[in-house]
Amino acid sequence: MNKIFIDACFGKKTPYTPIWIMRQAGRYLPEYMEVRAKAGNFLNLCHAPEMACEVTLQPVERLGVDAAILFSDILVVPNEMGMELEFIKGFGPKFPKPLETREEIEALDMNGAEKLTYVYETIKKVRAKLADDKALIGFTGSPWTLATYMIEGQGTKTYALVKKKIYQDPEFMHLLLCKLTEVVKEYLSKQIEAGADAVQIFDSWAAALEEDAFFEFSWKYMVEIAQYIKEKYPHVPVLLFPKGIAGYLDKIYGNFDVFCVDWATPIELAKEKLGDKYVIQGNMEPTRLYSQEATKEGVEHILNVMGSKRHIFNLGHGMLPDLKPENAKYLVDLVHDLSKNS
Amino acid sequence: MNKIFIDACFGKKTPYTPIWIMRQAGRYLPEYMEVRAKAGNFLNLCHAPEMACEVTLQPVERLGVDAAILFSDILVVPNEMGMELEFIKGFGPKFPKPLETREEIEALDMNGAEKLTYVYETIKKVRAKLADDKALIGFTGSPWTLATYMIEGQGTKTYALVKKKIYQDPEFMHLLLCKLTEVVKEYLSKQIEAGADAVQIFDSWAAALEEDAFFEFSWKYMVEIAQYIKEKYPHVPVLLFPKGIAGYLDKIYGNFDVFCVDWATPIELAKEKLGDKYVIQGNMEPTRLYSQEATKEGVEHILNVMGSKRHIFNLGHGMLPDLKPENAKYLVDLVHDLSKNS
Repeated sequence: MNKIFIDACFGKKTPYTPIWIMRQAGRYLPEYMEVRAKAGNFLNLCHAPEMACEVTLQPVERLGVDAAILFSDILVVPNEMGMELEFIKGFGPKFPKPLETREEIEALDMNGAEKLTYVYETIKKVRAKLADDKALIGFTGSPWTLATYMIEGQGTKTYALVKKKIYQDPEFMHLLLCKLTEVVKEYLSKQIEAGADAVQIFDSWAAALEEDAFFEFSWKYMVEIAQYIKEKYPHVPVLLFPKGIAGYLDKIYGNFDVFCVDWATPIELAKEKLGDKYVIQGNMEPTRLYSQEATKEGVEHILNVMGSKRHIFNLGHGMLPDLKPENAKYLVDLVHDLSKNS
Repeated sequence: MNKIFIDACFGKKTPYTPIWIMRQAGRYLPEYMEVRAKAGNFLNLCHAPEMACEVTLQPVERLGVDAAILFSDILVVPNEMGMELEFIKGFGPKFPKPLETREEIEALDMNGAEKLTYVYETIKKVRAKLADDKALIGFTGSPWTLATYMIEGQGTKTYALVKKKIYQDPEFMHLLLCKLTEVVKEYLSKQIEAGADAVQIFDSWAAALEEDAFFEFSWKYMVEIAQYIKEKYPHVPVLLFPKGIAGYLDKIYGNFDVFCVDWATPIELAKEKLGDKYVIQGNMEPTRLYSQEATKEGVEHILNVMGSKRHIFNLGHGMLPDLKPENAKYLVDLVHDLSKNS
C-alpha cells in the first residue's frame, strides 16, 4: 500500500496534502503525560522501546496524521558517544562536562551509533504496529546542532563558547563535525534498516550562524549525510530542516528530497526559491493553534500558496505544551479536507 | 561642522564609512563597570544623568566611533507609564505585574514621555560635551517589543502570552500598541528637542512574529512613528532596526532614512532589496570580534559589498560582555582605514 507521505516526499501526486506535526508526541497530550510519568524521566522514556513506541503512536491515533515520528531526543547521539547527559526539570538538557579540548574530541566513541539499540528497537516496534499507509520518520540532530550542545553543555543565548571555536579555532570545530557526520550517517542507516521510511535532519540551531559560517559549519555536513543516505537508500526520502535561515535560501544546494520551512520564512519565498527543486514541508506558526479561527486562516493561506502540489503540511516549529489536542485534530482534519478539494 | 554619521544617514558622500557599535557603552568596558558599580544597579544608572552621560561618552573616547548613543534602556518607557520594573541580577528585566486586561491598558499613564526627564537631561549633558563632528543617537524600543515585555513580564522563549493575545484577541494588542505609539512619538520628539541628532527604533523582538503579523503588529506602528518624526523634524535621520526578518525584506516600506541589518540577514540581500531606497546600517557578526583575523575578514567582506556608499558600519547585534575593548578599537580603526581607500 502506498504511503501518502512518502509519495509526497518524492513529489508524486497524492489524493490530499499529507500532514504531520513536529513534536506531535509530546506534553500537550494527556496520554503522553501518563506514559512520561510512568517512565520517571525523559531520558528513561527514550531508553524504553515499549513506552517510546506507545508515545510515538499516540498522535497517529488521536490526530490521524499521515506519519509517525520516532520518539527520541537528538542528544542520545553525543550521550552514546560517551558524554554524560542529564535532563534537568525546568531547565532542559545538560552535558555536565562539555567538550573543551581536541583530546576530548579524539576520545569520543565512534561506535556510538551501534550503542543506540533502544532507538532501533523502538523503530521496529512502531513499524510493526503502524498502519501500512502511514510512514515512520526517523531523525537526527545535525552535526552542527549536536556539536553546539556538546561544546556549550546546554542551551545558550549567545553561543559564546562555540563561536569562539569557530572564529579562533575552526579546525577544532571541523574535527568534531567530521566525527559527528560519520556517526550520524551510521545512525540514520541503522534507523532505516530497522524500518524508518524517511529520515529528517533537524538543524535547530542553524540560525546561530551567519551565512558563510552556516554553509561551512552546518550545511556542508548535512548535505554530505544526505548524499550518503540517498546513494545507499534511494527509496528513502531525506528531509532537511535548517531552522531560521530565510536569508540564506539562495545558496541552498544538495541531493535531498524535502526542504523543511520554519514559520519565519514566508512559504511564498521558500516556494519561489526552492519549490522547483525540492518538495516543501511546513510551515504554520504553531501559536495559531491557540485559536481555530487563526488556524483556519493559516491553513488557507498556506494551501493557497502551495496548492496540493509538492507540499507536506507541518507547523513551522514544534507543538507547544499548552496547546489543546482538539485544535491539533482540527488542524489535521482541515488540511486533509481543504486539500482534497484543491 | 558636518557630522559624518548624519551625512551618511542622508546618503551624502562622506570621507569614510562611519561606524558605531550597538551596546558600545557596556559591560565589556572596565570604565563602564566602574561607573556601574558606583550607581549600584542598572536602573539607577539610567536615572542618573551625570553617570549616564559619562558612560555614553566612554566608547567615543576609547574607540573613536562616529556617534554616541544615549545610555538608557527601552523599558524606562513602560516603567514611566506606570509599570513597576525590576532588573534582577543574572536574570534581566522583569515587570512583576504584567498587563492582563484592557482596564490595565486603559490605566497606563499617557504622560509617560513627560516623566522621562532624566533621559532628556542625559542627552543635554552628552550633547554639550560631545565633539561637534560626532552625532548623538537617541532611541526607543518599538511598540511591539515594548508591548511584548509588558505582557510577558520578562524575556520569553515561546511568547505564549503575547501570541495568545495576537491570535485570540488582536484588538487587545492594537489598543496597547496604539497607546505605546503615541507615547513613543512624544518620547522621541523630546529626545530630539533635548539634542539627539538622530533616532533609532529597536524592534528587538521582530522575529517573534510571522510575516503578516509582523507587518500588522509591529512594522505598521514603527512606520507611523517614523512618519511623524520625519514630518516634524525633517533634518533628523530615523533609523529602524527590525531584528531577524531576513525573510520579510520584500515588503519593507515607509518614510525613514536608514534600515539597520542584523547579522543573520546577508548584507548583499539587504543591499539588493533595500539599498536603493534606504541607507544600510550593519552588520558584522559580533562574535567575529573574538579574533582580529575574523574581524578583518568580516570588515573586508562588508566593505566589498557596500563600498563606501549609502552605508554605516555597525555590528549586526550588540557587543557581548566578554569581548575585548582592543578588538573593538581595532574594528573601528579598520573600518575607517579601509573605507578611506575605497
